[in-house]
Amino acid sequence: MPLWRVFIFVSVALNVAALPLLLHQYIVSHPHHPGVISPDQQHHACAPPPGTSGAAARAPSTGKPSVTSDSVINLDHGDPTMFEAFWRETGDAAELVIPGWQTMSYFSDVGNVCWFMEPPFDQQVRRLHRTVGNAAVDGYHVLVGTGSTQLFMAALYALSPADAAEPTSVVSTAPYYSSYPAVTDFLRSGLFRWAGDANSFVGDAYIELVCSPNNPDGAIRDAVLSSGAGKAVHDLAYYWPQYTPITRRADHDIMLFTVSKSTGHAGTRIGWALVKDREVARRMTKFVELNTIGVSKDSQLRAAKVLSAVSDGYVDGDASRHRLFDFGRRKMVERWRMLREAAAASGIFSLPAETSVRCNFANETAANNPAFAWLRCDREDVEDCAGFLRGHKILTRSGNQFGADPRYVRVSMLDRDDAYDIFIRRLASLK
Amino acid sequence: MPLWRVFIFVSVALNVAALPLLLHQYIVSHPHHPGVISPDQQHHACAPPPGTSGAAARAPSTGKPSVTSDSVINLDHGDPTMFEAFWRETGDAAELVIPGWQTMSYFSDVGNVCWFMEPPFDQQVRRLHRTVGNAAVDGYHVLVGTGSTQLFMAALYALSPADAAEPTSVVSTAPYYSSYPAVTDFLRSGLFRWAGDANSFVGDAYIELVCSPNNPDGAIRDAVLSSGAGKAVHDLAYYWPQYTPITRRADHDIMLFTVSKSTGHAGTRIGWALVKDREVARRMTKFVELNTIGVSKDSQLRAAKVLSAVSDGYVDGDASRHRLFDFGRRKMVERWRMLREAAAASGIFSLPAETSVRCNFANETAANNPAFAWLRCDREDVEDCAGFLRGHKILTRSGNQFGADPRYVRVSMLDRDDAYDIFIRRLASLK
Repeated sequence: MPLWRVFIFVSVALNVAALPLLLHQYIVSHPHHPGVISPDQQHHACAPPPGTSGAAARAPSTGKPSVTSDSVINLDHGDPTMFEAFWRETGDAAELVIPGWQTMSYFSDVGNVCWFMEPPFDQQVRRLHRTVGNAAVDGYHVLVGTGSTQLFMAALYALSPADAAEPTSVVSTAPYYSSYPAVTDFLRSGLFRWAGDANSFVGDAYIELVCSPNNPDGAIRDAVLSSGAGKAVHDLAYYWPQYTPITRRADHDIMLFTVSKSTGHAGTRIGWALVKDREVARRMTKFVELNTIGVSKDSQLRAAKVLSAVSDGYVDGDASRHRLFDFGRRKMVERWRMLREAAAASGIFSLPAETSVRCNFANETAANNPAFAWLRCDREDVEDCAGFLRGHKILTRSGNQFGADPRYVRVSMLDRDDAYDIFIRRLASLK
Repeated sequence: MPLWRVFIFVSVALNVAALPLLLHQYIVSHPHHPGVISPDQQHHACAPPPGTSGAAARAPSTGKPSVTSDSVINLDHGDPTMFEAFWRETGDAAELVIPGWQTMSYFSDVGNVCWFMEPPFDQQVRRLHRTVGNAAVDGYHVLVGTGSTQLFMAALYALSPADAAEPTSVVSTAPYYSSYPAVTDFLRSGLFRWAGDANSFVGDAYIELVCSPNNPDGAIRDAVLSSGAGKAVHDLAYYWPQYTPITRRADHDIMLFTVSKSTGHAGTRIGWALVKDREVARRMTKFVELNTIGVSKDSQLRAAKVLSAVSDGYVDGDASRHRLFDFGRRKMVERWRMLREAAAASGIFSLPAETSVRCNFANETAANNPAFAWLRCDREDVEDCAGFLRGHKILTRSGNQFGADPRYVRVSMLDRDDAYDIFIRRLASLK
């Protein structure tokens, strides 16, 4: 039976040939399976491109160096690396691929007030706010900035009359975010000038900064001033379900947000503003145009991908999805429990009281778990809490930088687990 | 022979099953083959993620709308989309993949003066300057900025004494880049103030901006002022082989560069400064920290990938490589030939003379082919050249915005072929 035999040999040969392809196909189609590094990383790690003159191309940064039990623990900045663990879990859901020829132009959307904003970013910002219910988007202009800090300066520029004899006074209720006075005054602008605590301000023309939940102390804030000539800028960087119950859909004239605190992507430097008035939106856009001629489109597209992945987590009732705010709330509840236990064990520290109200997003009663701890050292002989903690290799930001008592410090609650655990152990041991 | 028959059926079945896998494997393993769109694009184009409520996720922007023979042609801005064609040719050589969890921290390199700079960016900037020979890097600090515009402001901040009674005077020889006065004065800073043409400046304390090759007219410039109290900032955005012969390795105190003009990636908003003095570098870094708390790490990594691909093109003598500066010079030589012919055909325009000297990089004599044409309308009855051209649906920037005669206009030479060709035809037809 020679024909049969030939046919069998061919069949066996084809099957054998198919095996490596099956294997290869599996590897190629699962490059971002947890534990498998991406082709780009492989490139950096194993195959330096020609012409790096022997030296391998250097890898992307990983943030602050890793810590050991006797390291200095730096909780001065609100570096949100706590969220890295979540994004590793999501695999390639938030991975971005940028071809070399993409988004090379200065222009993104010539018909939009914010002509340098990528349409997918605008779309995903609106979608996420509708998903969370923390801010109104209908009838608002979305503006993108290089972090919300740039949009903060843009708002001061847009709200300060160019023809005013005196700079417009910029105020905020103490304790206020330490960057507000620094960013307002570092260029000694003739348009605006820091004027301190809103509660002690006298006058009609002002810009009041309302940060809620407040940096540094997590308090829910409303504007304290009101006058026809006064304006308010609402900094809602922390108005997300992992930090505080969502009690209403905010609908202020100017609202600022950032991915740094909502998703943890501080390195992308992307913030956004929701602005009611078209002329204010136009002037804020003009500021960004003069300051940096627009905003990184690569980071806008990455932010759009990240925000989309967050919203995707809450589509339909499928609890198997990766859900950022669930992860964030679990972590923050656990960390605040650890902190309150450590403060109690130490006996020389006090913290703001925990409050709970109904969260419209979680659809249950939830506590506030601020991104920063506003820690007070109660020991009589300690007048400089930051200095006292520095002596124990814990770096925090002193209350006096927030227009408050130096017996207080601001402590970041968003660092990596290893650093946070060491901080907790050290704090509990202080007497 | 039942056994034979069974074996044959199994073999045939397995071969049939293998076919689709073979096909799938081909598609997956060649996602970036020219003409095949990437998985990311496929995702956007074909498979909107769950929860986009029916609407497909929007695609990244493509810059200004495409043009037809009767469109308004906008050559007001130096939008460098001419380079898109080159980067499409390079396939995935400059493609960047960013995992969702990468570079989330504010910090990139805590030991560096510029603590937010990605090490691969620093590495590739130094490597490219060594490849081209246009600027010294040994003994210099590299600083990254959100475009060179942010670093321009950072330099003014760093060079202006904080304790001076009067703002420091900022000057540049006319015609000067139209953004210099606008960016210097828009916040009415008490630290620095625009003081106009350097040639008419009287005094000791100043900051002189030296743009070479010069925007708008392509002239090779040196500082015109010199005094112990005076400082110079050299804007070398156009000191690359596609625009001008490389005649020396520049080694000024502060030198500014940007990917917008070197590689065409304006949308990434990445510029860099080479700074000799550590204290100046520290103050410039402080400006970027206060202004935007660092610079997009996504764009820094993309710029590093792009700069690496440019340097790779000039490794060893392999002329088969994709070479950016060869592409750029070919295009600029062709476009300037077309422009001079069109001006001659029209008879009412004049252009700067072409000059040629030896280029150390190309190792041959080369002409200057500026990124902008400094075009003069010689018609007696036309005093506003920009208005005249606008009447023929050609948008340019008027000479008076550069401190010069409005009979001159600045025309971008870096737009896409279709727009440039329409501009040339229209210009040649004007009498």
